[in-house]
Amino acid sequence: MAIGTDFVAGGLRDGLVLNYASEREMIQRFAGPLPERGRPIDGLLDELAEVAHWSVAQSDPRYLAFPDSGSSVAAALASIVSTFLNQNLITFDRGAPAASVIELQLIGWLRELVGYPTRPLTEYDGLRGVGAMWTSGGNMSNHVAIATALAARWPQVHREGVRGLPERPVIVLARQVEHFSYRAAAQVLGLGSDALVWSAAAPNHTSDVAALAAALADPPDGARPFMVVGVAGNCRTTGIDDLAAIADVCAEHDVWFHVDACHGGSLLFSERLRGRLTGIERADSVSLDPHKGLFVTYPSSYLLVRDPADLARFARYPEKLNDPDCLDLGLITPFYGSRGFESLRLWALITHLGRAGVAALVERRQHTFEEMSQLLRDTGMFRFVGDSDFYRCAFVFCPRPAGELLEQLSARRETRPPLRAIVSKYTRAYAEELYRSGAVVFDLFALEDLADRLGLGTTDKFDVMGMCVGHPDIDDATRQQITEHLVATGEKLMPAMLAELRLLGDGEAADDSCLVLGPAGW
Amino acid sequence: MAIGTDFVAGGLRDGLVLNYASEREMIQRFAGPLPERGRPIDGLLDELAEVAHWSVAQSDPRYLAFPDSGSSVAAALASIVSTFLNQNLITFDRGAPAASVIELQLIGWLRELVGYPTRPLTEYDGLRGVGAMWTSGGNMSNHVAIATALAARWPQVHREGVRGLPERPVIVLARQVEHFSYRAAAQVLGLGSDALVWSAAAPNHTSDVAALAAALADPPDGARPFMVVGVAGNCRTTGIDDLAAIADVCAEHDVWFHVDACHGGSLLFSERLRGRLTGIERADSVSLDPHKGLFVTYPSSYLLVRDPADLARFARYPEKLNDPDCLDLGLITPFYGSRGFESLRLWALITHLGRAGVAALVERRQHTFEEMSQLLRDTGMFRFVGDSDFYRCAFVFCPRPAGELLEQLSARRETRPPLRAIVSKYTRAYAEELYRSGAVVFDLFALEDLADRLGLGTTDKFDVMGMCVGHPDIDDATRQQITEHLVATGEKLMPAMLAELRLLGDGEAADDSCLVLGPAGW
Repeated sequence: MAIGTDFVAGGLRDGLVLNYASEREMIQRFAGPLPERGRPIDGLLDELAEVAHWSVAQSDPRYLAFPDSGSSVAAALASIVSTFLNQNLITFDRGAPAASVIELQLIGWLRELVGYPTRPLTEYDGLRGVGAMWTSGGNMSNHVAIATALAARWPQVHREGVRGLPERPVIVLARQVEHFSYRAAAQVLGLGSDALVWSAAAPNHTSDVAALAAALADPPDGARPFMVVGVAGNCRTTGIDDLAAIADVCAEHDVWFHVDACHGGSLLFSERLRGRLTGIERADSVSLDPHKGLFVTYPSSYLLVRDPADLARFARYPEKLNDPDCLDLGLITPFYGSRGFESLRLWALITHLGRAGVAALVERRQHTFEEMSQLLRDTGMFRFVGDSDFYRCAFVFCPRPAGELLEQLSARRETRPPLRAIVSKYTRAYAEELYRSGAVVFDLFALEDLADRLGLGTTDKFDVMGMCVGHPDIDDATRQQITEHLVATGEKLMPAMLAELRLLGDGEAADDSCLVLGPAGW
Repeated sequence: MAIGTDFVAGGLRDGLVLNYASEREMIQRFAGPLPERGRPIDGLLDELAEVAHWSVAQSDPRYLAFPDSGSSVAAALASIVSTFLNQNLITFDRGAPAASVIELQLIGWLRELVGYPTRPLTEYDGLRGVGAMWTSGGNMSNHVAIATALAARWPQVHREGVRGLPERPVIVLARQVEHFSYRAAAQVLGLGSDALVWSAAAPNHTSDVAALAAALADPPDGARPFMVVGVAGNCRTTGIDDLAAIADVCAEHDVWFHVDACHGGSLLFSERLRGRLTGIERADSVSLDPHKGLFVTYPSSYLLVRDPADLARFARYPEKLNDPDCLDLGLITPFYGSRGFESLRLWALITHLGRAGVAALVERRQHTFEEMSQLLRDTGMFRFVGDSDFYRCAFVFCPRPAGELLEQLSARRETRPPLRAIVSKYTRAYAEELYRSGAVVFDLFALEDLADRLGLGTTDKFDVMGMCVGHPDIDDATRQQITEHLVATGEKLMPAMLAELRLLGDGEAADDSCLVLGPAGW
C-alpha cells in the first residue's frame, strides 16, 4: 500500500513521470533464473519498490501520452477490496452473489447512458435481458461485437462455422481512423483480414459517410457486409464520426452498426458533451473502455448490445435464459469463464461521484485539454495535424523558424518528401528526448495529414506526437514546468533542424525513414 | 484495505463462508437507479463493506467448491502495488518498462517449469523468441491455443479466413472430460462446434488414447484434424491424461498437441508430483491458470507455445520481431491491447516463495486433499464417483443405510433410472442445504459414473458434489467443524431419502429431473 501511494505521490520515482532505462538496461536489472529458494516479505517489498521506481506513472499529470490515468480514489479503494473478495463472476451461487448483481446494475447504468432501452433491475427476468458484458479491454470488446454481429446475421455460424455460411462475411470501415483491433479480430475470428472492406476517411479524421455507403452499395463479388464500424473518438485525434448519419446508412443497408466509443464513451456522462455522440443510441453494439477515459485502472471495458437477444445467442444453456432466478453471467459471456470482480471499480466511481460528478470531471478535463492545446500553441514549437473533438491532439515538432522555411521550400513539389522526412525525424527526436528526460511524456505515432495542414501532402504518414489529457486538472505550477521543458527541448533541437532544412534548400537530400512507434499508430 | 482484510479474516461475513441470499433478495438489496449525485467516500466504504458481507470467501478453508483460493499474501501485496502502478503492457516505452521485463522473465520461468526450451532473458533477441502470453483466464488461453494451432497449420487463415482453407479444420478431444471452453471457442473462432470431433473417455475420467488415435486415423469426410487436446487434470475429478502417449499419437499424425493444464499446472513446481504430467514438455501449447491452483487472485492465466515462432505469427509488425530492443508485448498478443500488470502477482508469489516454497505448498495441499477425502469417507455419508489425481473429487450423497438399499434395489435393471433420480435429488438437496447454511461449500454439477462405482450405469449423468481443496492447510478445529456439519446435514436428509428408496422398493416411481448447476459441469 505504501509502495503504491509512494509511487502515485512521486517519491518512488524521484519526482519524475518515469526514470528512463533502455530495454537492455531494464533486462539487466530484472532478469534472473527461476529462484529455487524465496525471500522474506521485506525483501519482496524492496523488490516491488524497485519495480515501481522503473515504472511509468500514467497517474502523473505530466504524463500526456494516453488517457489511462487510473486516478480515481474510489476505484482504487474498490480495487483493493475486490482483490481480497476475489469473487468469481462465472456464477452467482458459489462464485459471486453480490458481485453478479453489482455488475448487472452497472451494466444497466451503462445502457442507460448510451440511450439503450432499460428496465429497473428489480424487474430482472433472466439472462436473456442482460445485453452487455465486461471484457478485458477495447480490443476484446470489439472482438465480441464482431462475433455477436456475425451470429446475429447467420446464427448457424456457431455450429457450422464461417465455412457454412452462404456468403462471405465482410466488415466495412474507414481506413486511417481505424483501431488495430478490427484487423486483429478478423484474423483470429476466422474471417481473415481480407474480410475488411476499407473506405476512405474525411479530412477531419472521421469516417466519410458517403464512402461507407458506397462500399455497402457495391461490395466485392460474393461478399456480404454484415457490420459497419462507427468511430466515436478515433485513437489518434479523437475525431467523432457522424453517428446518426452512419446509423441511417446502416438501416438502409440492413447491416449491424457497431460504435467504437472506447475513447468517446466518457462524454456520455455529460449533458453538455454527449450531443457529440448523437446517434450512438441507434448502434447495434457499443464498445466502452472505462480504463481509458474514466479514471479507473485496468482491466475495465464493456460491450453493450442494443437487443439483448443478440448476446443471449451465446448461451450455453438456452433453457436457462428465461429463468428469473438464474444470474450466472458466465452462461452468456463468450471468451470468459472464471473472472474476477473488475466491475466493482467503475461501480464505485459512479457510486461515489454520481452521474453529475463524473460529468463534472469529464467537462473539466475537456477544459483542461483546450488549455493544454493552447499551451502547446503558445510555445511556438509545434504544428497541429488534424482536428480534435476531445482529449487528444496530434502535432509535429516545427518551431516557427522551421515553419517559415517549410513554407518556402514546400512550394516545390519535389522537396515535399524530404521535408516530410525532416519533420518526422525531428518530431521523433523531440518525443524521444522528452520521454527519456522523464519530465513530460507525449505519444509518438504515425499519421496522415489528411487536411494538409502542413502543406506537404495528405497521403504519406508523418511521425507525429500525441498529447492526451487524461486528468481533469493540471495545476499552474505543473503547466509552467511543462511549458519550460517543452521550450527547452525545442530550443535544443531547433538548430540542427534548421540547418538540415537549409541544406535541403541548398539541394541536399535527407533520410526519409519513418518509424511507427506508439500504440495509437498501431 | 480494512474491508478487504476484515473480509478475509471472516468478521465481515459473520464467521461464515458466506451469508446466503437468493438472486431475488440480492437484487432487492443492491439494485438502484443511476445515481445523479454521489456520496462521500465514507458512504462508499459502508457500501463496499455491505458488498463484502454478501460475498463468498473462496479464501476460507471451508470453501471447498473450487481451487481459486487467491490466498497468497505476496500476491495480494503485489495486487495492491500493481493497482497503483497501472502499467500498460501494450508497450515498453510509455506503457510498462519494468513490467514488460518482469512479465517476460515470469514467462521464461513458466516455460522452464513446463520443460520447454528456454534461454536466459539476458540473451533476449526479440519478440520472436517470447513464446507465451498472459490471458484473462483458462477459457481465453484455450482460445489462443486454438487460434495459434490453426495458423501454424494454415498460415493463410489470418488473411483468407477459415473459408480460404483447403480442408475443413477439426479438433479431436475426449467427451466427458472436456472443458466448456473448446465448444465456446469453436463457436466464436469461425470453426463452428461441428469442428469438434469427440472421442471417448476412459473409465478413470481421462482421455482414452486409443480412441483419440482412432479419431485421428479416420476423420470425417473433408475434415482435417489440426489439434488434439490433452487434459492435465479435468475440471471435475482432476484425472490426468497419459500425456506422453498422446504426444506419440499426435507426432504420428502430425497434429498440434495442446495440453490443458489449467488445473494440473501447479504440480509442475513439485519434483515429487510433476511426474504425473510427463509428456507435457512435448506439447505444442500448454494452458496454465495460476488463479486456479496457485493461490493468486484473478485474472491470471498463461498460454505457452513450445515453438515461439508459432506465437510470433500474430505479430502486427513482423519486421519488429527480430529487434532486440523491441519489448512491446502488445505486438504479439492476440486479443489483447492495453492491459494491466497482472503478471506481478504470480511473479511476486514465486519471488517470495521460490520454486521449492511453491512446491511445498502444492505438496501440502495434496496431503490435505487426501486427508479431506478420508474425512468424507469417515462421515459415512458419501460415495465417490470417479478417481482423483489431485485436489478435487466427486461424490454423491449416499449414507450407508441408503447405500445398502441401493445395492439391493439396483439388482433390477428397471429400477436404476429412478434410483439415479433419487440419488441425484438428495445430492442436490444436500449441496444446497450445505451452501445455504454458509458453513461449508461444495460444488454441485453433473457427471457420468464412467467406472460404474454406484452400480447404476455409466451413460447417464448424476448430479454430484465436488470437493476441491484449494488451501495447503486446514487446521484440526476447522476439520472437526466441517465433519460435524456434514454429518448433521446428512442426518437431516437421510430419513426422507430412505423413505423414498423404500417406496421405490415397494414399486413407486420417483421424479427423475436432473439439473446442471456448477461451472465444473458446464
